[in-house]
Amino acid sequence: MDQIKNGWFSEISEFWPGNSFSLQVEQVLHHEKSEYQDILVFKSKTFGNVLVLDGVIQATERDEFAYQEMITHLPLYAHPNPKRVLVVGGGDGGVLREVVKHSAVESVTLCEIDKGVIEASRKYLPNMSVGFDHPKVTLFIGDGLEFMRKRKGEFDVIITDSSDPIGPAEGLFGRSYYELLLQALAPGGIVCSQAESMWLHLDTIATITKFCKDIFPVVEYAYTSIPSYPGGSIGFVICSTANSCKSPARAVPQDELEKMQYYNENIHKASFVLPQFAAKSLNL
Amino acid sequence: MDQIKNGWFSEISEFWPGNSFSLQVEQVLHHEKSEYQDILVFKSKTFGNVLVLDGVIQATERDEFAYQEMITHLPLYAHPNPKRVLVVGGGDGGVLREVVKHSAVESVTLCEIDKGVIEASRKYLPNMSVGFDHPKVTLFIGDGLEFMRKRKGEFDVIITDSSDPIGPAEGLFGRSYYELLLQALAPGGIVCSQAESMWLHLDTIATITKFCKDIFPVVEYAYTSIPSYPGGSIGFVICSTANSCKSPARAVPQDELEKMQYYNENIHKASFVLPQFAAKSLNL
Repeated sequence: MDQIKNGWFSEISEFWPGNSFSLQVEQVLHHEKSEYQDILVFKSKTFGNVLVLDGVIQATERDEFAYQEMITHLPLYAHPNPKRVLVVGGGDGGVLREVVKHSAVESVTLCEIDKGVIEASRKYLPNMSVGFDHPKVTLFIGDGLEFMRKRKGEFDVIITDSSDPIGPAEGLFGRSYYELLLQALAPGGIVCSQAESMWLHLDTIATITKFCKDIFPVVEYAYTSIPSYPGGSIGFVICSTANSCKSPARAVPQDELEKMQYYNENIHKASFVLPQFAAKSLNL
Repeated sequence: MDQIKNGWFSEISEFWPGNSFSLQVEQVLHHEKSEYQDILVFKSKTFGNVLVLDGVIQATERDEFAYQEMITHLPLYAHPNPKRVLVVGGGDGGVLREVVKHSAVESVTLCEIDKGVIEASRKYLPNMSVGFDHPKVTLFIGDGLEFMRKRKGEFDVIITDSSDPIGPAEGLFGRSYYELLLQALAPGGIVCSQAESMWLHLDTIATITKFCKDIFPVVEYAYTSIPSYPGGSIGFVICSTANSCKSPARAVPQDELEKMQYYNENIHKASFVLPQFAAKSLNL
């Protein structure tokens, strides 16, 4: 809460030193210290309601669709027939909302460590937490790494919708987590993880993609524009046990496309095209 | 200068209400009120030296290459043989630096209204203002609209590298300016103009592209990621008297590609692919 001064919330972090994004606050709706982190929800002047964990913006109602659609539909349309989906993190429910747009999906499990996030989202972010209400959804409260250890060959797609690698999500950026992901995938499976900004965290991305290349036959990186994340964009590490994910593996049905605000077939392909500085550094 | 508080510069503007980008300041290098605007240059902690006009960040040494390369190379590689180039605005020199990378270019004229910007850039942004030193460059200090009125059929590419449509650059966003651009183009000519963020100014972009469709046979919109601009991205209206600009019209020579930090042939194509919300609204 000490990040709100003179009516503005400022996201100052040593993870992106010297630059900061701020939103004007209309009203603080919720603030608690959960077992795992500081949870803040405020109503902003121009970005709708905003979810903040440990001082870092996780989602704003104005632009969350870009992140939620891209982290979900890139792997799901890259898979020819995604039946069983796992979401690790994603306690706001937005990724679930996107997963269940796919008629192929038979079941989706969400493993979130902090039930405080789910409760805050249910109350203040109804357009995201609507995802929890779908009959195909199973909810599991617990540690993502622990959960993964028990899963073998079960999932067609695993999405890791985590906060940054400082705090409760740290383990979700390590090599051992990706080894568990591989074990938990069914044949032909795909994983897609939140993987920071190429402008601010190219070294982190290079580290992850490097060890992923030891584990998965296909390792790729995509990104989306999104104003409320540091640097105005965020990326995804996408690893496949089979084919490249750079193009959709099946056509996007018209009724599914009509539900999209960001994703389409062409933006799928474009999101994997890296600018020179990132292409050279990541060698992808 | 009242935008610097507690060692941070904050870009607060009614043109993007309720959200703001901030940079930590190490030292103010230059501040003046020129005939046209407030000119500030500061050394930031993590984004290098920063040029600010009327309180709005124009360029930081850390990420300026994304903007300068894309606003320049999209039209120049879309043109089969760009010999004569005009830059309107661009007083920091960065676009000139990019234009002269093209061996086809025989002459490039820059028309900047405010010589104070050029002088500040020469002193504090040497990696951008280096563009002024090239023998193919002719400099003209004066109003862009006035300059354009006297030009007929002269230029293969015209780049409008302006600040926002509030202040001295306002006229460069109007229909009559685009009519003058058409007159100033040689057959097959292309114009490319700074055209704001699809996240923050979709209405402005829609207005411009709508009147451009009355003037030019081809009207397109592209964008680039760039952390230090509002919303983390900025776009360009690209109008052609001949063919679509969505793909390069000629191969990018290896020696030219090696000078790039952002641009390549694939990012050229990807930069025209719009997310659903923008594609629907702009109908491009």
